[in-house]
Amino acid sequence: MRMYDLIKKKRDGLVLEDNEIRYVIEGFTKGEIPDYQMSAFLMAVYYKGMNDHEILILTQCMAESGDMVDLSDIPGIKVDKHSTGGVGDKTTLVVAPIVASCGVKVAKMSGRGLGHTGGTIDKLESIPGYRTDLDREEFFEVVKKTGLSVIGQSGNLTPADKKMYALRDVTATVDSIPLIASSIMSKKIAAGSDAILLDVKTGSGAFMQEVDDAIKLAEVMVALGENAGRSTRALITDMDTPLGKAIGNSLEVIEAVNTLKGEGPEDLTIECINLAANMMVMADLGELDECRRKAEEVIGNGAALKALIAMVEAQGGDASVIRDTDRFGKARYIREVTAVSDGYVVSMDAAGCGIASGILGAGRETLDSVIDYAAGIILEKKTGDEVKAGDVLAILYTNDEDKLLPAEKKFRESVIIENRQVERKPLIYALCSKDGVKRFDGNF
Amino acid sequence: MRMYDLIKKKRDGLVLEDNEIRYVIEGFTKGEIPDYQMSAFLMAVYYKGMNDHEILILTQCMAESGDMVDLSDIPGIKVDKHSTGGVGDKTTLVVAPIVASCGVKVAKMSGRGLGHTGGTIDKLESIPGYRTDLDREEFFEVVKKTGLSVIGQSGNLTPADKKMYALRDVTATVDSIPLIASSIMSKKIAAGSDAILLDVKTGSGAFMQEVDDAIKLAEVMVALGENAGRSTRALITDMDTPLGKAIGNSLEVIEAVNTLKGEGPEDLTIECINLAANMMVMADLGELDECRRKAEEVIGNGAALKALIAMVEAQGGDASVIRDTDRFGKARYIREVTAVSDGYVVSMDAAGCGIASGILGAGRETLDSVIDYAAGIILEKKTGDEVKAGDVLAILYTNDEDKLLPAEKKFRESVIIENRQVERKPLIYALCSKDGVKRFDGNF
Repeated sequence: MRMYDLIKKKRDGLVLEDNEIRYVIEGFTKGEIPDYQMSAFLMAVYYKGMNDHEILILTQCMAESGDMVDLSDIPGIKVDKHSTGGVGDKTTLVVAPIVASCGVKVAKMSGRGLGHTGGTIDKLESIPGYRTDLDREEFFEVVKKTGLSVIGQSGNLTPADKKMYALRDVTATVDSIPLIASSIMSKKIAAGSDAILLDVKTGSGAFMQEVDDAIKLAEVMVALGENAGRSTRALITDMDTPLGKAIGNSLEVIEAVNTLKGEGPEDLTIECINLAANMMVMADLGELDECRRKAEEVIGNGAALKALIAMVEAQGGDASVIRDTDRFGKARYIREVTAVSDGYVVSMDAAGCGIASGILGAGRETLDSVIDYAAGIILEKKTGDEVKAGDVLAILYTNDEDKLLPAEKKFRESVIIENRQVERKPLIYALCSKDGVKRFDGNF
Repeated sequence: MRMYDLIKKKRDGLVLEDNEIRYVIEGFTKGEIPDYQMSAFLMAVYYKGMNDHEILILTQCMAESGDMVDLSDIPGIKVDKHSTGGVGDKTTLVVAPIVASCGVKVAKMSGRGLGHTGGTIDKLESIPGYRTDLDREEFFEVVKKTGLSVIGQSGNLTPADKKMYALRDVTATVDSIPLIASSIMSKKIAAGSDAILLDVKTGSGAFMQEVDDAIKLAEVMVALGENAGRSTRALITDMDTPLGKAIGNSLEVIEAVNTLKGEGPEDLTIECINLAANMMVMADLGELDECRRKAEEVIGNGAALKALIAMVEAQGGDASVIRDTDRFGKARYIREVTAVSDGYVVSMDAAGCGIASGILGAGRETLDSVIDYAAGIILEKKTGDEVKAGDVLAILYTNDEDKLLPAEKKFRESVIIENRQVERKPLIYALCSKDGVKRFDGNF
């Protein structure tokens, strides 16, 4: 078999055989297929796509390219969660403690952010002392003891995906459904949980700007998970505007804690309850409505917050900042951005807010960049809100004074205020499961 | 400017600015843009194409990536020729002496073959002593003295094309009109002749299998040449079946010599006279009909053969093999392939015959392979001919006895004999010039 022929075959829109896909992934992972052939292949896949069976085999090969984590030593049903990423997305910090306190086991490996905002691991590392580099034994121990553990990716998990993603990232071949789906699902399958909940974002701040594309991606991923013997569900959620009010690492941890206390922003709270309920359904804890009630219950009685504190302590973190979030390190420079005219916020672009937050220091441009954990933005107004001239739209936080003005400029560019009311977008568009797609019209 | 953005722009089908194309070609030639980004870019060009202006700038940048040969020290109008390649294509060996003996200057750099059959340089090197590595001064001297010189590519000619072609060759991005046209024309423009004749092949043994695609490619190349201030014409010629009867290096030289004596195969003779006449038209030697007559004249009076002998001698070759082609080294093993049934040759696939010839030793698989100059095939029957069982279809030549049977097998697979007469395909389909496309119906 020659890589040349396989590039040509996919270039011409033909369907690859199982052993041909295996040849590509194994050869590329081993370094026998050079980057320049792989990038041409990936561009051909970008244009010509793959059918469901090809994506299935691709995902399988990628999952099996490295370690396959075996979580069977941990008793109970393990449920994983993945978000396709967005601005202000701190749902893992809320959802994992909720479901853990209801009896679901969460043994989750999460990523660092490379871009404008931090990833879940960066957010957790804003908690002093919190260790994300547990070894296998420690990881299992924490899950057994507290019901949940969130650590960084360790070991040799899906090296094929690591290499492919690095290449896609510099060759404009990221936004392809077969490649996104296989990248996400190979990692989730290799990570070993029994069930997988996907949070597929749609809107200006997401990969998939259109709802229908997001649903298509979700359907492909659900099929991949189910085919690999994992119960899989996906919620399609809005990322036209940031989720919640906080953007930035410790700011988001604080908001997550408030949400676990029942004092979080409405959108974040509703979304987290729904994500959590779907995870619980897959762990056989009941029907969706019943699981929603359980989620509300563990927020109301403090059990969910206790689960977060237990995990933080078990992973070496200083839980006093969770108990009293005023103890988090404060940004030295704070600036209020106020409205210059009356009107309504007709749009608040998630991607733009993310970039502004990145300018303040909340993200990293390269893997070596150092994150300013206290940096970020608190949104005081959101899409749909009425504003008066002089009202505070947002508060910027940073430890680098020079970043305030450029961040404000970027933030202002991302917000449109006009003299007309707009309807808020739905928060959750659809649920995909093995039973098909269920679209919501505001009621979920 | 970032290569990533330019890949994405072309991927999305947008038109690149001049400075963007320049950035890609300069950056890639200097090694600042890595192969893996270039191959993704080339695949995007494969799918999305380029408009005429983009191809013009691309060609210009590629031509200017290395030396631009200045032939102005050689008096007279210099006319170059390029064939897109085919099996049995020895036209340069016939055409260059014809036009040189009519007063056109031919200062031609030619390529080695990489594939099943040798290139013009390989064919010339089958003449004992013939030097293809002349330096600039020797090259000019031979042209001044004999009117023609054919040497290998020397100096730093279009390094951008060399690097790009090497990459396209292994990433299935060769057959793209913008990329083929810019590759050919950048080399021809850098090579410095005043006028350029293109022989664009069409049919099963050519890049462009369909006549219309070949015409499209020819039109793009003619426009590129004219835009660079070079008179440019293209003939669209058949490569469904091999040209002439000989395939293989010294076998083709012998056939070329016979053609220059007026004793060549009809198809080769007609094609060479037409190629030569069009070169002469561009050198202001008269109208097409008049130039055809001049070509026939220099064949008839022996002047064209004398020109070939003069060049061979000036480049150190043993011209006695040209004067008496029986003196060429003979292949040790010869095998006649005979027809097993009566009928008509309804097709004789050029590509298949080329592969059979390659098996016999006439080509090279890698740049290090050694060519068997005496190896090859003489076709005794061609498409349209009637055959009786037992008739000789072809004679195979090689110095490696083990190659006879596999070559025969491949050759037989390439020939279809059926009990029905077929029309011969036209030899020349069309002429493209700055005045447009003129299609022929058998009359040219």
